[in-house]
Amino acid sequence: MSHPRILIWNEFRHERTTEAVRRLYPDGIHEALAAPLRTAGFPVATATLEQPEQGLSEAALAGADVLIWWGHAAHGEVADEAVERVHRHVLGGLGLIVLHSAHYSKIFRRLMGTTCSLGWRVDGARERLWVVAPAHPIAEGLGPHFEIAAEEMYSEFFDIPEPDELVLVSWFKGGEVFRSGCAWRRGFGRVFYFRPGHETFPTYHQAPVQRVIANAVRWAAQAGRREAAPDNRRCAPLEA
Amino acid sequence: MSHPRILIWNEFRHERTTEAVRRLYPDGIHEALAAPLRTAGFPVATATLEQPEQGLSEAALAGADVLIWWGHAAHGEVADEAVERVHRHVLGGLGLIVLHSAHYSKIFRRLMGTTCSLGWRVDGARERLWVVAPAHPIAEGLGPHFEIAAEEMYSEFFDIPEPDELVLVSWFKGGEVFRSGCAWRRGFGRVFYFRPGHETFPTYHQAPVQRVIANAVRWAAQAGRREAAPDNRRCAPLEA
Amino acid sequence: MSHPRILIWNEFRHERTTEAVRRLYPDGIHEALAAPLRTAGFPVATATLEQPEQGLSEAALAGADVLIWWGHAAHGEVADEAVERVHRHVLGGLGLIVLHSAHYSKIFRRLMGTTCSLGWRVDGARERLWVVAPAHPIAEGLGPHFEIAAEEMYSEFFDIPEPDELVLVSWFKGGEVFRSGCAWRRGFGRVFYFRPGHETFPTYHQAPVQRVIANAVRWAAQAGRREAAPDNRRCAPLEA
Amino acid sequence: MSHPRILIWNEFRHERTTEAVRRLYPDGIHEALAAPLRTAGFPVATATLEQPEQGLSEAALAGADVLIWWGHAAHGEVADEAVERVHRHVLGGLGLIVLHSAHYSKIFRRLMGTTCSLGWRVDGARERLWVVAPAHPIAEGLGPHFEIAAEEMYSEFFDIPEPDELVLVSWFKGGEVFRSGCAWRRGFGRVFYFRPGHETFPTYHQAPVQRVIANAVRWAAQAGRREAAPDNRRCAPLEA
Repeated sequence: MSHPRILIWNEFRHERTTEAVRRLYPDGIHEALAAPLRTAGFPVATATLEQPEQGLSEAALAGADVLIWWGHAAHGEVADEAVERVHRHVLGGLGLIVLHSAHYSKIFRRLMGTTCSLGWRVDGARERLWVVAPAHPIAEGLGPHFEIAAEEMYSEFFDIPEPDELVLVSWFKGGEVFRSGCAWRRGFGRVFYFRPGHETFPTYHQAPVQRVIANAVRWAAQAGRREAAPDNRRCAPLEA
Repeated sequence: MSHPRILIWNEFRHERTTEAVRRLYPDGIHEALAAPLRTAGFPVATATLEQPEQGLSEAALAGADVLIWWGHAAHGEVADEAVERVHRHVLGGLGLIVLHSAHYSKIFRRLMGTTCSLGWRVDGARERLWVVAPAHPIAEGLGPHFEIAAEEMYSEFFDIPEPDELVLVSWFKGGEVFRSGCAWRRGFGRVFYFRPGHETFPTYHQAPVQRVIANAVRWAAQAGRREAAPDNRRCAPLEA
Repeated sequence: MSHPRILIWNEFRHERTTEAVRRLYPDGIHEALAAPLRTAGFPVATATLEQPEQGLSEAALAGADVLIWWGHAAHGEVADEAVERVHRHVLGGLGLIVLHSAHYSKIFRRLMGTTCSLGWRVDGARERLWVVAPAHPIAEGLGPHFEIAAEEMYSEFFDIPEPDELVLVSWFKGGEVFRSGCAWRRGFGRVFYFRPGHETFPTYHQAPVQRVIANAVRWAAQAGRREAAPDNRRCAPLEA
Repeated sequence: MSHPRILIWNEFRHERTTEAVRRLYPDGIHEALAAPLRTAGFPVATATLEQPEQGLSEAALAGADVLIWWGHAAHGEVADEAVERVHRHVLGGLGLIVLHSAHYSKIFRRLMGTTCSLGWRVDGARERLWVVAPAHPIAEGLGPHFEIAAEEMYSEFFDIPEPDELVLVSWFKGGEVFRSGCAWRRGFGRVFYFRPGHETFPTYHQAPVQRVIANAVRWAAQAGRREAAPDNRRCAPLEA
């Protein structure tokens, strides 16, 4: 599958209410995420909270191989039915890439089963992301580490199930560490959490960040789409 | 902690409606589970679906180190608030032992984030449980394998997150296998799924099954009780 | 990488000394493994113990993306230097597929760090392999399970590090189970152990077995070749 | 098992050849490690490279529940037979705690199967160790993080098999991160790698470091001692 179909979902609030964010992401974070992926040849659709069915219709989800999710201020406004729909599709092989503050989204917490809480501080200081699994497809082309000059800080303890594969660990100038690139298999789907992306910083315009996201799309799409595991099923005897 | 406090929760339906089950478990599956644990010195309380707050009050949960859960016909009747309460306590270190058909309970599916569906057949044939992690505390004293003469069959694919530790794998006479003893860490808690225990068979009266459950209680209690991870927390700078 | 370069290594003893084996594999197990892979378009080289440098020269290893290994009677004759060479290449991204009795090969034990011992019985009874990770690339196209009419039995406890991904579990007619498809990441490489393949049965002529091996080749090749991790390296200070 | 028997092995070179090290550890690093463990009630024996059988006789190993290992300059002098002996005992349940530069010891590399190489810099700057698994027994009593005012720096990529449980991640003032507390199960044994402890710093005199080591001893001893997994074993048929 050379070019998985991508659906980028963004709650799209800060960009419309906060001038500083609009300046960084004038067309919304979803368009900033979409641009380099389109350039790389991926078919990309975008969706936002204000759209019909919150942009998460059955058709929209069925038409994607990978869903990228950004949310922050409006997690509670995402309808439970939409979350259940996304959940079912992820268990059926829809790749899911969860960005930054979406660690607290309903869908991520639903998939993880834990609180997903963490420590934070918006100080705009340096973050350095270290590759701890250099042969993982998501680390391809990154080198041993890369930097973001100014970001929000996230710190441990990050209350998640231990990742099936830990790919990136962040160092923060202020003295903290964080498991910033975490991969899980759930049902028939693949889930990747990627930490950077606070709305007041130009993070998604930076090449290494874009590289991680494109790598993660390819990795998450490998599972392939199907129906989620069927209900408990009565089985006839086999030849024993 | 030599004797963790145990709370055994049973939906307690089949034993009151089906004569064949009542004959096997005249005081309910919960009392059959409790008896050997009490003999071994554990303080054991029991709770059932018909009790006030469905037997899952804040006080009942706060007073336990480990919760054992059996349910089958009435998963849907367990109140969502009760499930949230149990979930919060498990993330705060309450050990959880999920038995047999409780793979489809709300609380287990909530913690796993997947469908937890599987294949099944009630044919009362032999099950042999193989120890694949002989040094795990839950396998203590079991030898390389043990048998149950007649049980319901469960087969793969079992739609769960890959266990943090796989302890037991079942062989069924009818030709199937199943991951029967699975351990996970979630939040500050420990969760163990143990397959056997269909209500129409005397499974919980058998010594190796009782041994696994007692071992699992000790293992699950090791996490210790505390508050679940707090909400996202703003952090002051550290000395860098 | 559409067609990784494959090197198939076979100790090639039983086929020359035992008539029953020669009848099943007249050109050696390596050629039986090679045929369907060549048909599928993979470039395949073969090597055997009697060749110069035991078929494991620096050039042979450098020219492969994936190494398939079959051995049984002559593990001890494989030179330690050859094992070290293979080990270095695997840590540098050479995929390694370890078949059947090669669980006791020097290279597999070297990579695992455990005894890799197991239980066995050559009774030629039915084996049924269950897929416990249906979304894993190695399970592609297999369905929920597949059978081998007659095989040697292997049973737990199999003394290996817990697999990074458990893909297949075998059921044996004689009453045993075994973790038959196990995946690990080591260094920059990927390792897959696949159980079936006793020399006195026509296992490698069967389509589902060939399918698993071809899938495993594609999966193992994904890591990509490079140098193994360099020696401890002194690091200059970074911008902090 | 309230007080496992501990054997502390130290190559004991720097303390005898370098005045600065002798001042910090006048009786050797082994005695500095032993003192707080003895105070806590553990029976502790010590052993060094210069002793008969390099301090690693069959009797010494058989008499311990947990082995603590410190080495740096003389890894190559440890006899291969001694390493094989330790290896066999670890696979038979001897807990192993590997400290600091012993990441490059023969026994650790033998158990891991990878190069175990890493980045380093002796700059004596601050290290802060973050707990990423707060419910793990080895993290008991540590709080969210603890500091070492001056240490050698170790950085990723650390070429190890992904830990079965990752407990601690280090932040370094110079800009690096490292997986500093890593737990594995191997055979019937438990292995813990703990990073701090460069010989030119007073690390082992600090309470949180001593706490981690004591916690790790209790955790590693839980496996219990037995024989390592026996050789491949022919199995009689079971009742099927």
